[in-house]
Amino acid sequence: MRHVSGARCVKCGKMYDADPNVTTCSCGGILDIVYDYEYIRTKLTKEKLAARKNPSMWRYRELLPVEEDTPDTPLRVGWSPLYEEPYLAEMLGIKKLYVKDDGLNPTASLKDRASAMAVAKAREAGAEVIACSSTGNAASSLAGNAAAAGLKTYIFVPSRAPKGKVAQLLTFGATVISVEGSYEDTFELSKAAIEKWGWYNRNAAINPYLSEGKKTVSLEIMEQLNWEVPDYLAVSVGDGCTIAGVWKGLKDLYGIGFIDRLPRLIAVQAQGCYPINRAVEQNRPWEPMEENTIADSIAVGVPRNPDKAINAIRESDGLTVEVTDEEIMAAQKLLGRTCGVFGEPAGVTGTAGLKKLCEEGKIPADASVVSVVTGNGLKDVANAIKYAGEPITIPGDMDRLLREFEERGIRP
Amino acid sequence: MRHVSGARCVKCGKMYDADPNVTTCSCGGILDIVYDYEYIRTKLTKEKLAARKNPSMWRYRELLPVEEDTPDTPLRVGWSPLYEEPYLAEMLGIKKLYVKDDGLNPTASLKDRASAMAVAKAREAGAEVIACSSTGNAASSLAGNAAAAGLKTYIFVPSRAPKGKVAQLLTFGATVISVEGSYEDTFELSKAAIEKWGWYNRNAAINPYLSEGKKTVSLEIMEQLNWEVPDYLAVSVGDGCTIAGVWKGLKDLYGIGFIDRLPRLIAVQAQGCYPINRAVEQNRPWEPMEENTIADSIAVGVPRNPDKAINAIRESDGLTVEVTDEEIMAAQKLLGRTCGVFGEPAGVTGTAGLKKLCEEGKIPADASVVSVVTGNGLKDVANAIKYAGEPITIPGDMDRLLREFEERGIRP
Repeated sequence: MRHVSGARCVKCGKMYDADPNVTTCSCGGILDIVYDYEYIRTKLTKEKLAARKNPSMWRYRELLPVEEDTPDTPLRVGWSPLYEEPYLAEMLGIKKLYVKDDGLNPTASLKDRASAMAVAKAREAGAEVIACSSTGNAASSLAGNAAAAGLKTYIFVPSRAPKGKVAQLLTFGATVISVEGSYEDTFELSKAAIEKWGWYNRNAAINPYLSEGKKTVSLEIMEQLNWEVPDYLAVSVGDGCTIAGVWKGLKDLYGIGFIDRLPRLIAVQAQGCYPINRAVEQNRPWEPMEENTIADSIAVGVPRNPDKAINAIRESDGLTVEVTDEEIMAAQKLLGRTCGVFGEPAGVTGTAGLKKLCEEGKIPADASVVSVVTGNGLKDVANAIKYAGEPITIPGDMDRLLREFEERGIRP
Repeated sequence: MRHVSGARCVKCGKMYDADPNVTTCSCGGILDIVYDYEYIRTKLTKEKLAARKNPSMWRYRELLPVEEDTPDTPLRVGWSPLYEEPYLAEMLGIKKLYVKDDGLNPTASLKDRASAMAVAKAREAGAEVIACSSTGNAASSLAGNAAAAGLKTYIFVPSRAPKGKVAQLLTFGATVISVEGSYEDTFELSKAAIEKWGWYNRNAAINPYLSEGKKTVSLEIMEQLNWEVPDYLAVSVGDGCTIAGVWKGLKDLYGIGFIDRLPRLIAVQAQGCYPINRAVEQNRPWEPMEENTIADSIAVGVPRNPDKAINAIRESDGLTVEVTDEEIMAAQKLLGRTCGVFGEPAGVTGTAGLKKLCEEGKIPADASVVSVVTGNGLKDVANAIKYAGEPITIPGDMDRLLREFEERGIRP
């Protein structure tokens, strides 16, 4: 990989070769892939990119840590739509709002980007089995992307994972171990099993390549905005890997001169579980928290990638905000009604946080903001129904319909 | 619309102006939009199309019945991936297999194509409210596409509609009437209400524009195959509108000279409900049937578009085949395990039928086949879980994991 200089520890700075099996630093720190930006500048131009037809994350090969001959992974991951939402922008009192619907990925979440990268690197490593622990989306995306590539998967999920995600795993043919306990318990069991059997490790905070997959969401956003940098970028935070990836993509684009400034990140966590935001807000090391939120994908009390996430928020002069489950579910409805976008609870948490900051007057009226919806609402139908209300259930009778409309004050 | 000649009744041949509000013929027949192929040939070339960046159904404007100044609808509908599946092709004993995953549309089904068209035509008609009855997917797609465009919706669904679809409707802000009865009862109540309040009618067999939206799936398939026509195209059949749309798209491409032959259609229905296939097989008029299948989207005992569908199967020298619920759910797993594609039961019924025909030796070994997956498996998680099995549920303990693997004969 001529364009990759190596993998650098975010804690002690030690450099490693970018081998497909590289994991964490001997000091325990997480590694960050380092590119040769000067070399990439000679290989990639905006015009070259614009001429590419590949509507997937692999259109950005020069910025991805894969060998030249590593094939694109089979599922079409990435190039999700970025919608301009003037109506919702007006409601929130900001100048411009864009919603990136990453729930339209093949297995319906942003995690497909990381899993596709894991599959590419597992192939480079010659592995036939990949494993991970996950609150659900990393799992289902790995199972789907690996199945399409003919690789076996062992997946560890906490037993609270919503049914939609478990249904995906089983249909994709994964061996699924549902752990009765927290995400922490799940992670530890997966770690022990991966060590024992030597499976390729897709745990996002161990494998430094995964945030390189996730960063493609920022590369796309910027290309879709024709390289006009927004003032803010709002995203939900759980394990910390997504916001770290988002930031990495922006910095890479800055590094190769495709953008001339960087947006401020808006890091949104649930009020019932916000160890990363708390560390930033109180300017002290992070500490574990309970996992007390409806937004299962970001209910991570012991985040596995706090360093990269906290760095990203600080470096970007970012904002942090916490939202209640009620605010999350209100954002789900708001996005549905005004944008036609149906996100899962954790998927709309970024938008919920943005709304809260707007209401608190913390976002200037002339701001342009991108809000990333990270997963599809169909992943967690039970909660959507609980908050969205019930349909009008009647027999097929016009008089009855008239009566119901009248009683409910519906005037067609 | 210079490129549209009018709307012709499929029963009596009477021509109507292609007005946005046109519905059915005075004889009761369904209308079919007729194009001026000679004119379109002067406006659209393969090269022109290839240069377009618009990754949505609206890239085919010259073949769509909308005014030049009608805006694209807001959600990014269409341009779903077409995957080549060599492994599954080999399993089925055919030369080439392509799977079109239309579950990756914004509201997760092929119906988004029709609903986007309905929204475009409603805007042309100056309507502010759209209504429809649906087994679920037409409903949720209409609710989503209309919400994004700022239009109100009234939606009638049979009370058996799966929760995933109802959750979508409510989140998109539709007024939902859940009818305790068959699809027929639901349809009749919607018809009465639409007449009473004058809403824009998105009922697929009434509104002739909708199959023009659906046909974009064939336009895409052919462009994605670089205009190399497959031997067969397999699709599930319920109301009859989808297969009619698929066929219309192919005929349009033939009409403007983009393809030089037509594939044979494979019309797949559920064994518990196959009025259209029965009519073709027995060569007599269709008759109502019970709606006895797990595949809710195609459980249509009184199809509303039988004429166009039966014509399409006959004209294409098509094959018909019926599959059991078990065969449908086996196809769901098969697609998941071998392709990483998770389709809803009705969505994978086309593949189930293809598999059955292959096993019966009815598809030649040198055939190339496209199978369209029409909806996402996340729409009906309950059935997926019922058939996909359960995960291995244990506490976070390595000894316990070893014991479970041993007892289940799992050898990592």
